[in-house]
Amino acid sequence: MTIEFAAQGDARDVEEGKTLAPKFGPDGLIPAVAADAESGTVLMMAWMDAPALAATIETGEAHYYSRSRKAMWRKGESSGHVQRVREIRLDCDQDTVLLLVEQVGPGACHVGYQTCFYRKVVRVDDGVALEVTGDKAYDPHAVYGEP
Amino acid sequence: MTIEFAAQGDARDVEEGKTLAPKFGPDGLIPAVAADAESGTVLMMAWMDAPALAATIETGEAHYYSRSRKAMWRKGESSGHVQRVREIRLDCDQDTVLLLVEQVGPGACHVGYQTCFYRKVVRVDDGVALEVTGDKAYDPHAVYGEP
Repeated sequence: MTIEFAAQGDARDVEEGKTLAPKFGPDGLIPAVAADAESGTVLMMAWMDAPALAATIETGEAHYYSRSRKAMWRKGESSGHVQRVREIRLDCDQDTVLLLVEQVGPGACHVGYQTCFYRKVVRVDDGVALEVTGDKAYDPHAVYGEP
Repeated sequence: MTIEFAAQGDARDVEEGKTLAPKFGPDGLIPAVAADAESGTVLMMAWMDAPALAATIETGEAHYYSRSRKAMWRKGESSGHVQRVREIRLDCDQDTVLLLVEQVGPGACHVGYQTCFYRKVVRVDDGVALEVTGDKAYDPHAVYGEP
C-alpha cells in the first residue's frame, strides 16, 4: 500500500479532525522530533519529506530526509543505531511530527552522545557559552570511521 | 546586557566547542522544541529569531517568533500559560533549540491539551488516520474567548 497524505482543510479540521494532513513546507519538508518512548528524553530533530514519513509509517523505523545529501535516509543505516517507532504524533496544526522511539544502540547522535541535545546554555562573565551536560555514550570514530 | 550570538566556525567547533553559535535559517529563524523539564513530555515546536532566543535567555521565560504575525511573542502572554525555562539546550550542529520548561497552567496547546502532540497516527482499513490520545486539559474558549 502506498500512503497518500491529504491536503489541509480549514483550521478546525486540521486541529480537531481525524484526517492525517501533514503540512510540508515550501521545500517539501516537515520538522520531525524524536524522543525516547520510555524516558521522554528528546533525542534529535531532523526533517522528513512525504516519502520519509510514509516509509516511517510503513516500516516502523524512522526515516528522515537529508537536506545536505538531498536524499531520504533510514536512521541508523550506517551506524546500526536505528529507531524503532512506537508512536507517530502530529501537533495541532500538523506541521511538526513527533516520533516516540526505542533508540537501538548507545545513542542517537553522530557525535557520540545519547541525545543530540548534550549541551546547555550557561551565563558567563562576558556573555553566554555552552556546557556539556553528560558523557559520550560511544566512540563515534569506532562506529563511523576516522574523520 | 545585550546578548550577541557568534557565527559558526568549522564543524568540530560547532559540535564540540563551548561557543554558542546558533544557526538561524535563511529566514532568520531556528526551530525550538519545548519539553516538560520533569516528565519529559514534548509540549510544542515553534520558531525563534535571534531576539526571541536572547529574550528567553535574559528573562528565563520562553519567547518565540510568530511566522504568521511576523513578531516575537512571549509564550502565555494572552493565556497566562507561560513557560519558565529551566535549561536551554542546543543540538550538535546548533540548528535546533530545546527548552526544558516548567509549563505554568494546564497546558501548552491553544487547542486545550497539555501538549500540542495530542494525536497519533493509526492504520485504518483504507489508509491512515489520527486518533486523540488524551482528554483536553482546559477549555480554550474560556481562556482565549469564543472563536
